Amino acid sequence: MTDTPYLTRRQLLKAIGLSAGATAMYHAMTALGHAGESTFTGPPVLTKARPGTRVVILGAGLAGLLAAYELRKSGYQVEIIEYQNRPGGRNWTLRSGDRYTELGGATQKVEFAEGNYFNPGPWRIPHHHRAVLHYCKELGVELESFIQFNHNAYIHSNDAFAGKPQRWREVWSDLQGNLTELLAKALNEGQMDLPVGVEERDQLLQALQGWGLLDEEYRYRSNLYTALRRGYSHAPAGGRTGPPEPGPLLNLRDLLHPSIWRGLNSQLVYNAQPTMFQPVGGMDHISKAFVRTMDGLPIRYNAQVTRIAQDEQRVTVTYKDTQSGEVSQVAADWCVCTLPLSILGQLEFQASDAMLAAIRAVPYSSYVKIGMEFRRRFWEEDEAIYGGTSVTDQEIALISYPNDRFMSDGPAVLLAAYTSATDNSLRFTGMTPAERIDAALAQGERIHPQYRKEFLSGVSVAWHRVPWMLGCRARWSDSARHAHYQAVSEMDGRVVLAGDHVSYTPGWMEGALQSSLDAIEQLHRLAQGEAK
Amino acid sequence: MTDTPYLTRRQLLKAIGLSAGATAMYHAMTALGHAGESTFTGPPVLTKARPGTRVVILGAGLAGLLAAYELRKSGYQVEIIEYQNRPGGRNWTLRSGDRYTELGGATQKVEFAEGNYFNPGPWRIPHHHRAVLHYCKELGVELESFIQFNHNAYIHSNDAFAGKPQRWREVWSDLQGNLTELLAKALNEGQMDLPVGVEERDQLLQALQGWGLLDEEYRYRSNLYTALRRGYSHAPAGGRTGPPEPGPLLNLRDLLHPSIWRGLNSQLVYNAQPTMFQPVGGMDHISKAFVRTMDGLPIRYNAQVTRIAQDEQRVTVTYKDTQSGEVSQVAADWCVCTLPLSILGQLEFQASDAMLAAIRAVPYSSYVKIGMEFRRRFWEEDEAIYGGTSVTDQEIALISYPNDRFMSDGPAVLLAAYTSATDNSLRFTGMTPAERIDAALAQGERIHPQYRKEFLSGVSVAWHRVPWMLGCRARWSDSARHAHYQAVSEMDGRVVLAGDHVSYTPGWMEGALQSSLDAIEQLHRLAQGEAK
Repeated sequence: MTDTPYLTRRQLLKAIGLSAGATAMYHAMTALGHAGESTFTGPPVLTKARPGTRVVILGAGLAGLLAAYELRKSGYQVEIIEYQNRPGGRNWTLRSGDRYTELGGATQKVEFAEGNYFNPGPWRIPHHHRAVLHYCKELGVELESFIQFNHNAYIHSNDAFAGKPQRWREVWSDLQGNLTELLAKALNEGQMDLPVGVEERDQLLQALQGWGLLDEEYRYRSNLYTALRRGYSHAPAGGRTGPPEPGPLLNLRDLLHPSIWRGLNSQLVYNAQPTMFQPVGGMDHISKAFVRTMDGLPIRYNAQVTRIAQDEQRVTVTYKDTQSGEVSQVAADWCVCTLPLSILGQLEFQASDAMLAAIRAVPYSSYVKIGMEFRRRFWEEDEAIYGGTSVTDQEIALISYPNDRFMSDGPAVLLAAYTSATDNSLRFTGMTPAERIDAALAQGERIHPQYRKEFLSGVSVAWHRVPWMLGCRARWSDSARHAHYQAVSEMDGRVVLAGDHVSYTPGWMEGALQSSLDAIEQLHRLAQGEAK
Repeated sequence: MTDTPYLTRRQLLKAIGLSAGATAMYHAMTALGHAGESTFTGPPVLTKARPGTRVVILGAGLAGLLAAYELRKSGYQVEIIEYQNRPGGRNWTLRSGDRYTELGGATQKVEFAEGNYFNPGPWRIPHHHRAVLHYCKELGVELESFIQFNHNAYIHSNDAFAGKPQRWREVWSDLQGNLTELLAKALNEGQMDLPVGVEERDQLLQALQGWGLLDEEYRYRSNLYTALRRGYSHAPAGGRTGPPEPGPLLNLRDLLHPSIWRGLNSQLVYNAQPTMFQPVGGMDHISKAFVRTMDGLPIRYNAQVTRIAQDEQRVTVTYKDTQSGEVSQVAADWCVCTLPLSILGQLEFQASDAMLAAIRAVPYSSYVKIGMEFRRRFWEEDEAIYGGTSVTDQEIALISYPNDRFMSDGPAVLLAAYTSATDNSLRFTGMTPAERIDAALAQGERIHPQYRKEFLSGVSVAWHRVPWMLGCRARWSDSARHAHYQAVSEMDGRVVLAGDHVSYTPGWMEGALQSSLDAIEQLHRLAQGEAK
């Protein structure tokens, strides 16, 4: 954490030696480029389980399904208790004809055209989520490219560029060009200390000129050179259509608006960097593949867990059939509990004080996602935006375009909102489904004027109103993490928690899978009579 | 070209008003975001041709095929003369069992596994190449994402980072972070003039802090904040695998090496920006689709044009059957000649002095491309690189990974070299095919140590040795463009040239298609008796 990229010459002697060790070690680790990509190094290799050992798994989301999958391989008798009438949890895809009833009673029916879908939960897989990719391959889930980062998509702010959406590539090129020019100017005119590693001012200036596409006087200008990066007002073409022409640069004041660099940053984070993937046809193909591959796996659907009791011999789970109201119990030697903390805090759970305190300590975020179907792919046809994401500082936060069946005719579904700020999420959560659609249309049409004309239907999922989640993802604060993470991640008697909330990457399927693998390794060690 | 992104306050009064008009016009043009994307606004709508009008088209590459396709729609009698035994020209895909004989006599047989392929010519379609996308859709050519820009691919230089390849995301993050920190330092410490549009130093500093991920003291450091962009040494994971940790930053001296910013720039140009496409299964599906759709189109294959004569009544093309040696002639009312200038300069062509001078004035580039098949996708399995391009300052210039069938087992083909510098291209052109493979392996294994162990076979195309091209693409200098472009792009008697050489974007299929559309519009106007 103290590694320093450069220092002034005066500071160098003081700092030298601090980072060399870490750097050397890191380079050794990265001989094949693998360090840091993922802590996943392959599926667990569990020894043969003691015959007849029973494990009850609460929740048929990805963490629960993976636990069942690997524990069964090792010979455990596994059973899953699931609240819904389907597997997958947030690994969820809404398609034509689906109905969804949220807390408060509003029911939405999905009216999309056949083949169109909307993932209200996870919707993309980063290339460094190796556990997800591993199991997709093992289970035969077909993946295709998911494009998040599209230079031709828009950045929009009501407070910059007079509210007009701008192409990512122009905004980014011009911001970088301007800042590079400014630094070159400071270097040329000022008495700046050169940073360590730079022998000559000319060396730095040459890099600035190259990286910023500056001209021979170190200025960033509209010309055919910068157009190679930022695009043209008249594109290079064929025949007698005239020579290419660069467009005017964007205004610096607008480029510097916080909404703009925030918009740029949102597309540049590690979790959004190419290459990303999505399952062909909908995210729930992952959970479906898990279930399909586990022939004869007992899953009790429509079963609401009301109590988790344990003693030295066994775990006893009480659940209620949500259709008949009938209450039943299931006993097992061990339990993998993947219920979200938001749910777990509401039922009777016989666990250590540390565990119970942890469960109460972690709030859940309240994101809202909206899928909308439009008559045609106007973003492709009119604006040459194929997949990827436009960002805005409005409440909807983004518009993410479909990454499959490019250039096809007929209706298509895009992600019309993914509220990220808490205030915005709560405001959308408080609306009726119809009001959410209206709000998303009003905000979306500031980016795409075709919105109202082409709109067909929409569906929204406000995660705080999802009966089986009561939130979108665990929001671990640093202090909660410090005080409580150990408690939720370690076996508590005969129960071990799993799920993305038991990870450093909540809300991502990778966290769910990795936490599940760690959970079953702990369980297996105890079950085999090894020390904890 | 005189548009200025910012000026000092002193300069402002002088410059004001210069760019406002252009900007306003541009914004009006971009109301739907379309200006500059492409000059293609749809296929030509030609009136009905005079009955019996014959057009001979020289070359069955994309320009020739499109001319045939559109002229036939209008009722022309069209015939194509083609040197090779297949359509497509550089729209070309090599597959298992294909043989290719280059000038000098060396014959290569492609040994790839079934389903694997290599595009020696164009290999990707930018999202703004609207004519290509239009005809792909019209002809039913299935497209899929082509990923060029991959943050997890490498930048490599023998002269930076001790020759070790570095991940794009780390190089780019650290360069940007360092430069932003340096500018913040200059602003904080110096007496810099603020650029126009910036009211307060704090406004600029806040943007720098946000964009550069600088800490509260405006320093770019290794921490969990910058790791959100540059990645981790220990990734956020699940269970008890420990908290995420940032990796050490890269060395500034190496970051500033010209090979590094050149490498970064190469992935940031407009023509390489996401979203890009490729036809599923090989680029030649475009030319094949053109031929398939033109039922009964006469194409004379194996026909080497030796003479193009014209008078006031007709065009007469003399050609030699390359198999039998038999010489024949075909007469037509008009001719669309898509032969490359490199070939056209070597045959007898009855044209204006201006045309003949132009043909002699444009040299062709000599790029070399190498496709290599490896036993397995080690770049995916070992290094989490899925598609995209690694760049190097070695002669091979790049390694581009396959963008289809991610995570599949079995052999896969990558683009192992695409020499861009003239010297390097000529050196590779001078080698035997086997020597080229050896050189590409030696350079490639500096990036991927698995190279030799996993290599199966390779095939190279040195474009100066391609008998029907004698080069890769027209290399128009500014002065040649100024003196000669008009001559090649305008109808010359009864002959009009078409092809990517008659465009401002040579080497791209878009240039070929757009020039062809302009050519047939000229031809049609003359043929209908309208003024030129």
